[in-house]
Amino acid sequence: MECQNYNITRGVERENLNLNPLQRGGILPREARKALYEFGDGYSVCDYCAGRLDEVVKPSISSFLGDLATFLNADDVKTVHGAREGKFAVMHAMCDEGDTIVVDGNAHYTTHLAAERAGLEIIEVPNSGGSEFKIDLNKYKETLESAIDKYDEIKLALLTHVDGNYGNLTNAQEFGKICSDLGVPSILNCAYSMGRLPIDMNGWKIDFVVGSGHKSMAASGPIGVLAMKDEWIETVLKRSPRHMKKEIEMLGCTSRGAPIATLMASLPHVIERVNNWEKELKLTQNFVAKLEKIDGIEQVGIKPTEHDLVRFETPILHEISKKHPRKGFFLYEELKKKKIVGIKRGQTEWFKCSTYGMNAKQRDYVANSFKKIIKKFVN
Amino acid sequence: MECQNYNITRGVERENLNLNPLQRGGILPREARKALYEFGDGYSVCDYCAGRLDEVVKPSISSFLGDLATFLNADDVKTVHGAREGKFAVMHAMCDEGDTIVVDGNAHYTTHLAAERAGLEIIEVPNSGGSEFKIDLNKYKETLESAIDKYDEIKLALLTHVDGNYGNLTNAQEFGKICSDLGVPSILNCAYSMGRLPIDMNGWKIDFVVGSGHKSMAASGPIGVLAMKDEWIETVLKRSPRHMKKEIEMLGCTSRGAPIATLMASLPHVIERVNNWEKELKLTQNFVAKLEKIDGIEQVGIKPTEHDLVRFETPILHEISKKHPRKGFFLYEELKKKKIVGIKRGQTEWFKCSTYGMNAKQRDYVANSFKKIIKKFVN
Repeated sequence: MECQNYNITRGVERENLNLNPLQRGGILPREARKALYEFGDGYSVCDYCAGRLDEVVKPSISSFLGDLATFLNADDVKTVHGAREGKFAVMHAMCDEGDTIVVDGNAHYTTHLAAERAGLEIIEVPNSGGSEFKIDLNKYKETLESAIDKYDEIKLALLTHVDGNYGNLTNAQEFGKICSDLGVPSILNCAYSMGRLPIDMNGWKIDFVVGSGHKSMAASGPIGVLAMKDEWIETVLKRSPRHMKKEIEMLGCTSRGAPIATLMASLPHVIERVNNWEKELKLTQNFVAKLEKIDGIEQVGIKPTEHDLVRFETPILHEISKKHPRKGFFLYEELKKKKIVGIKRGQTEWFKCSTYGMNAKQRDYVANSFKKIIKKFVN
Repeated sequence: MECQNYNITRGVERENLNLNPLQRGGILPREARKALYEFGDGYSVCDYCAGRLDEVVKPSISSFLGDLATFLNADDVKTVHGAREGKFAVMHAMCDEGDTIVVDGNAHYTTHLAAERAGLEIIEVPNSGGSEFKIDLNKYKETLESAIDKYDEIKLALLTHVDGNYGNLTNAQEFGKICSDLGVPSILNCAYSMGRLPIDMNGWKIDFVVGSGHKSMAASGPIGVLAMKDEWIETVLKRSPRHMKKEIEMLGCTSRGAPIATLMASLPHVIERVNNWEKELKLTQNFVAKLEKIDGIEQVGIKPTEHDLVRFETPILHEISKKHPRKGFFLYEELKKKKIVGIKRGQTEWFKCSTYGMNAKQRDYVANSFKKIIKKFVN
């Protein structure tokens, strides 16, 4: 049989300024590119496996997991295929079908899917709406308390540390305290925070933390991180009675390939950028301020933003699209001419973007490009 | 904090003749190396996602999945993280906790773990033991029939197409017929066959087939293939009531990264090598014949072998190890001097190996190397 042409290239998205928030935190540094080359073949990290991926010493996965635990201030760390797979593993191991858990109203869709897959019901703490879409932790506490009243026991409470729609950061320490005071195991979804900003799992009294290598840890996907308190190891990492070395919920081993090699190679780079998070945030806030100077562009979500993922309402761009011969596609096409990509084709009423990792000059260039495009069509 | 040195290199295993059966089928051809480079960054295949990974058109994942279905003669194909994750998804979706399924006695440990994770009991069809370790399909049929008698309904029967201990190939067509005659949904674990030898899912009347990209499809791990009959789509790929585009059992999307790009790029290469399977097998059989000419080396499993993964009992090597100053390590060290790797350090009583994809000269070199090493210490 003949195969079709699958168009397996990505030059445009790699070589231009990519504003897609999904892509900014997963760009590989040079060391990870090298690891990808070294471990590109098949099952490459398993050459010296004696039955446990997390105990492999060449490459030294075991040392890496120890360092990662230190970095997150966690008792124990495993790699999984992504944040969603980590959430499912925790829900599946901690809860029984038919149980009810509490989650925030800004949760990622994969939180809902993980719960559905595990047969769980969800009680949601709504966000504030308005223009902030904030999660109020007092409301979270009330909701959790009344859930406990109603169901007697709540086996898991989840908070999205930074959500993917507004880039709102919610106070993890306060969440950890609420849950530990109420005796409810807590899980923090750090897909947009671990690898960007500091995580202090034990300091925050959180029971489980999940992160995403491809989203925020400069790793090649799919790979995620699942960190947990010691007390849950026996529940979540229960061994198979038949294969005593193997953990059932992990199906034995998880990240058996190049992604874990890139995650390992990137850790020093990730630690450094997390240490520089405040500087990064300042650059994003400057970028947002510049865009907001344009009439008809306004940030939504908590202000000033506490994360590089930012959502804008852009009525001015929508106005232009109504008269432009290319309609909604004009924005994508004008940006592309300026070597800027990552805003969805056809979208003009609002967009999400991130300039994470760009230098000040690049961010200025992006902000000026929006200004110029609007000027071109409004005057 | 300071990171330790993780030793993220693999020159020895990449550049020498690697006999590890786990590694032979996952070596990337040039096109896949290019795809790995192009899609190395984070979430790279998701640039143009409109909510469904399998419908992405750039790169053309949708066309690829269509071609893959044709190649396997399957109704529908999804990518998963590996064969084990495919097996778990099927078991979890098809069965209820407490159900009993039937599996062959040569099943991979991940079949047991997937069943344990899904809360299932297993009835096992033992292999023949002796020196063949063969799965007798008449015995499978009897076991399945009596399981149906006992439990009224059996929701799944699994066969390991080629097992990872002996490289025994079991007749999938016969298995498909047995299951479909008895009205039991069947699943074939093709981790060691899909991508090496022809798969004819609908021709064999099999309901589910799982394969491994990193083990046998020249792809960078972790990635697997889950193929199914149309009639199971609604059960296994049930959509989320809340997120109508998303499949619950897949947690929305599975292979969001470089591995799927390499699997796609390798398909033409894989199709070609599957077409040449008979030639490949002949080369393996010649290799086995050469090794068996050495006194004290004998293949176990079905003879002549029907797969490149071969297991040998090697009492002669064990004899040498008893007197050798390096004990059991002598074999690994002697082979390494000859640029041959992939036999576990310290192992001498028996070993598994594969020369899959090597040319005739390389295989002769490997066989002669064993001969020379033995001669060196026996005379």
